[in-house]
Amino acid sequence: MSVKTGPFEQMQSVLADDMAAVNTLIRARMASEHAPRIPEVTAHLVEAGGKRLRPMLTLATARMCGYEGGDHVKLAATVEFIHTATLLHDDVVDESGQRRGKPTANLLWDNKSSILVGDYLFARSFQLMVETGRLRVLDILANASAVIAEGEVLQLTAAQNLATTEGIYLQVVRGKTAALFAAACEVGGVVADAPEEQVDALHAYGDALGISFQIVDDLLDYGGASASLGKNTGDDFRERKLTMPVILAIAKAETMERAFWVRTIEKGKQEEGDLEHAMKLMAKHGTLEETRKKAMDWADTAKSALKPLPDSELRGLLEDLADFVVSRIV
Amino acid sequence: MSVKTGPFEQMQSVLADDMAAVNTLIRARMASEHAPRIPEVTAHLVEAGGKRLRPMLTLATARMCGYEGGDHVKLAATVEFIHTATLLHDDVVDESGQRRGKPTANLLWDNKSSILVGDYLFARSFQLMVETGRLRVLDILANASAVIAEGEVLQLTAAQNLATTEGIYLQVVRGKTAALFAAACEVGGVVADAPEEQVDALHAYGDALGISFQIVDDLLDYGGASASLGKNTGDDFRERKLTMPVILAIAKAETMERAFWVRTIEKGKQEEGDLEHAMKLMAKHGTLEETRKKAMDWADTAKSALKPLPDSELRGLLEDLADFVVSRIV
Repeated sequence: MSVKTGPFEQMQSVLADDMAAVNTLIRARMASEHAPRIPEVTAHLVEAGGKRLRPMLTLATARMCGYEGGDHVKLAATVEFIHTATLLHDDVVDESGQRRGKPTANLLWDNKSSILVGDYLFARSFQLMVETGRLRVLDILANASAVIAEGEVLQLTAAQNLATTEGIYLQVVRGKTAALFAAACEVGGVVADAPEEQVDALHAYGDALGISFQIVDDLLDYGGASASLGKNTGDDFRERKLTMPVILAIAKAETMERAFWVRTIEKGKQEEGDLEHAMKLMAKHGTLEETRKKAMDWADTAKSALKPLPDSELRGLLEDLADFVVSRIV
Repeated sequence: MSVKTGPFEQMQSVLADDMAAVNTLIRARMASEHAPRIPEVTAHLVEAGGKRLRPMLTLATARMCGYEGGDHVKLAATVEFIHTATLLHDDVVDESGQRRGKPTANLLWDNKSSILVGDYLFARSFQLMVETGRLRVLDILANASAVIAEGEVLQLTAAQNLATTEGIYLQVVRGKTAALFAAACEVGGVVADAPEEQVDALHAYGDALGISFQIVDDLLDYGGASASLGKNTGDDFRERKLTMPVILAIAKAETMERAFWVRTIEKGKQEEGDLEHAMKLMAKHGTLEETRKKAMDWADTAKSALKPLPDSELRGLLEDLADFVVSRIV
């Protein structure tokens, strides 16, 4: 009796050797001769629970484009280091106490360690890129890093601001998620010396996949399109984050409804029952369903983007991955 | 009547056009299309009060080695961005409220902005390096960035630990100061395609200059070798930082003295009069004078390092700069 596995597990299986090499390299490079605090903090985050989705994208795209060398392993580790560095800094910025069901590094050690170890991993990631001897991957990942930081700052200043538009939200989402997805896919094509058209296609795929991924995350924070609230839902509302479902509801709000959003999000004066009322307003205007459709559209965009790539097992799995990302909200 | 100016002002005058180009480039690159908070925070730090010593080193070494292109301006701006990014993060880590006599960014805005804008500048610095098309400068500055972060983490874990040796202190100093000085000088030689022997010499000069610079800073925190305490002295003692004068005093401490250091530095139970007593112990063992001599030795090392470079006005000014750095404590 065979159990049908998802595209992510299938990719893990197809790329098992490459992924093992990435894990070995990550462990070797997160060491520090002088400061043992560094591998302690990094191991907490790198070893535990992460799905390695981003490095997997680099491995998959490089192999899909026929790459047979070993530099894609360095680039995959680079991508994971950049991701880990941003998580360390994000948890300090968001004052988070939990990630992936475990206490965050800023809670276990302190904010200082999270900031400095993040900086260390960021520097390490650039060292790894330099080793590939390819200026173009440095260009792509330095640009992605700038977009990530810019998006985070934008989120900071857009938070609690009811004037936040869908366009600003998209900019934030590109920064916090899609920029690294896009770069992870693009460098896979670049290291394989794929034709420009294919490299562009990989960037477009990663961008759309990342946006879809983040919209799904934001929707699930309100219990998905079915709006079934559980113990992990409503965090964004309590933290007064303006995500797609709320932005769309504010755009359609009548006078009284607007006053509700001003009080709860802008002024942060939340009372018992406010989350339930927010859910009712979103249901009334159909914004959870509208958000779900947007996530599906972005997943379709991701799949279509892959058309310039020749048909292959990995292309099929990358297409399936886009469906899989939104399957959580179907 | 001519006023004799110091080597720093003379270098500023010799390199005035280059420095103006660096300032223009910094202003252009600290902009952000989407997040106006970024240039606000950066301008606060970049525009105000900084001496631009590190970018000046890059300009001076490149020109000294006969460089006639324009990439040294990009590298100088890179160095200043890395420096500014580390200052932003340092002020959060040290919970500082003041820098250069002005409120710090973390106080004016918040820790979040300082962390994220620091990340942005770090990414921007790598973009600038990529534009020079030289992998070797990327290698040098990525390595320096890793050493900086490693040194900061080491300082964090070494703080308040009486077992901190002079060797660990030197490692911390290399991280917090000398690594960027060394890299700033080295890339000047690299961009000018100087012979290896000269590039090595420039690295050695920057390393020794940076160490001397930091030891002087640490000594001045105790009022210099003359130990004249003013309103800005004793901060390191109050913050329980183990710097050279204290490390040397602990190494020579008798039993009672050791108990004093354990109470004040390790346990942090400081009382009225403790700083004065610490000064007495350092005077008794001559550690402020010993520290002064070490700073002078490093300045001499810096000057000697320049010997492989042909004699020139800029070489003379760089030598004078090493003397100038320690002149504050002579």
